[in-house]
Amino acid sequence: MAGRLMPLELIDKCIGSKLWIIMKGDKELVGTLRGFDDYVNMVLEDVTEYEVDAEGVRREVKLEQILLNGNNVALLVPGGSPDS
Amino acid sequence: MAGRLMPLELIDKCIGSKLWIIMKGDKELVGTLRGFDDYVNMVLEDVTEYEVDAEGVRREVKLEQILLNGNNVALLVPGGSPDS
Amino acid sequence: MAGRLMPLELIDKCIGSKLWIIMKGDKELVGTLRGFDDYVNMVLEDVTEYEVDAEGVRREVKLEQILLNGNNVALLVPGGSPDS
Amino acid sequence: MAGRLMPLELIDKCIGSKLWIIMKGDKELVGTLRGFDDYVNMVLEDVTEYEVDAEGVRREVKLEQILLNGNNVALLVPGGSPDS
Amino acid sequence: MAGRLMPLELIDKCIGSKLWIIMKGDKELVGTLRGFDDYVNMVLEDVTEYEVDAEGVRREVKLEQILLNGNNVALLVPGGSPDS
Amino acid sequence: MAGRLMPLELIDKCIGSKLWIIMKGDKELVGTLRGFDDYVNMVLEDVTEYEVDAEGVRREVKLEQILLNGNNVALLVPGGSPDS
Amino acid sequence: MAGRLMPLELIDKCIGSKLWIIMKGDKELVGTLRGFDDYVNMVLEDVTEYEVDAEGVRREVKLEQILLNGNNVALLVPGGSPDS
Repeated sequence: MAGRLMPLELIDKCIGSKLWIIMKGDKELVGTLRGFDDYVNMVLEDVTEYEVDAEGVRREVKLEQILLNGNNVALLVPGGSPDS
Repeated sequence: MAGRLMPLELIDKCIGSKLWIIMKGDKELVGTLRGFDDYVNMVLEDVTEYEVDAEGVRREVKLEQILLNGNNVALLVPGGSPDS
Repeated sequence: MAGRLMPLELIDKCIGSKLWIIMKGDKELVGTLRGFDDYVNMVLEDVTEYEVDAEGVRREVKLEQILLNGNNVALLVPGGSPDS
Repeated sequence: MAGRLMPLELIDKCIGSKLWIIMKGDKELVGTLRGFDDYVNMVLEDVTEYEVDAEGVRREVKLEQILLNGNNVALLVPGGSPDS
Repeated sequence: MAGRLMPLELIDKCIGSKLWIIMKGDKELVGTLRGFDDYVNMVLEDVTEYEVDAEGVRREVKLEQILLNGNNVALLVPGGSPDS
Repeated sequence: MAGRLMPLELIDKCIGSKLWIIMKGDKELVGTLRGFDDYVNMVLEDVTEYEVDAEGVRREVKLEQILLNGNNVALLVPGGSPDS
Repeated sequence: MAGRLMPLELIDKCIGSKLWIIMKGDKELVGTLRGFDDYVNMVLEDVTEYEVDAEGVRREVKLEQILLNGNNVALLVPGGSPDS
């Protein structure tokens, strides 16, 4: 197994590649990471936002470029989601 | 793909142009960004506030100039929303 | 379009004039701003507090002078609300 | 209209006099302010606590001296409530 | 009326005597204060904890010595509760 | 009555002995304290975790060694719970 | 019983080995710890995520590498869960 890998090091390695972001609650996003700060606020491009509405219907929204507030992020998965 | 773009750099580029702001909960706003601080509190002008009320009716309110508390912002989309 | 306008600059310009304050939840206030601090706690005078109770009835309370905790403020609109 | 009045200045002026305190949620208190700190934790005397219970019945409790956690204060009204 | 009394001064005066502690939510405690820190975490002895359960039944638990997290304290009343 | 006892002093005295931990919500734990930090995050050993599930059934889980996030601790009782 | 063991020391000892992570709410994860920071944000590999959905069905998701926000962690159990 490789050596120690710190959280911000892992995110830094993801600059320019796909990232699957799972938020607290049911919202998920996949996008290419352009930048981030110490609070894990993130600039993402070519973004697909996935949300399950009250009737259980899965909705997708395409967004060119966004700034995501890191405060509600639960989990980051480098390489993007199985769907993407 | 362009180089690294930090969160506050992205917002700075939006000064003077349209910004689509998606809040935690169902509220959204579109307006022209005049200024912001490190907490992403924002001064916006020519603002349209979109809210879906309990009966699912979409309400729009026009506001000339506002100060928005950044604490409840989930997502910023430069360039404004598809509707605007 | 005018130049950059920072959040605290905007509030500072409102000293002595009407301000419409929209809180998180359904409460709104209109009053004249006398002072504020970095947390946007505010001293207001000639205040009207608007609240919609559980039965949907809109209640107004007049208050001469108050100190409002800035922690629950969602939005500030210089110049007061359409009603005022 | 008088000049600028900062939040902590206003509270300082209330030392020794009646203060109406409206908490987040339905609890209200009226009492004489003896002291406070930067977090607006407050020492109050000759206090009446007003609460509306689940059945809508308004309950009053008299307390000689209390320390109130400022964290849940929504609004302060110098001079006490209309009832007092 | 006596002079100014700061919050931590008031608590300091209660060392060694009975204190009635009202928590956010329905829990209350009465105990003798042995020590506290700047966050109003408190060491209490000869403690009675009062709680009203879902069926409205009032439950009392006796505890010899406890450390109480100050984070959820709403109100402190020197001298103990009417019951004690 | 003994002299002043500060919160972190009390916890320090519990190193190596049984501690009953009551969390916000219905979860409780009993275990031997091995270490703690300023946020009252705690290393515990020979731990029994008590939880009452939705049907009111009391569940016990035995854990050899854990790190408990201090953020949700409501109350610490030195010496362990009556059951233990 | 061994000597004092501080929280971050315990996590440090877990680098390279299995860790069972119990989140606030019903989500649990097991994975190999690669790194962590002072906020207990964690880089984990060979991760299995366990979640019980609204119908009580237990769902498992396998993830190669993740960054977990430490903010919602309730409990860490070195050595992995009984299932793993």
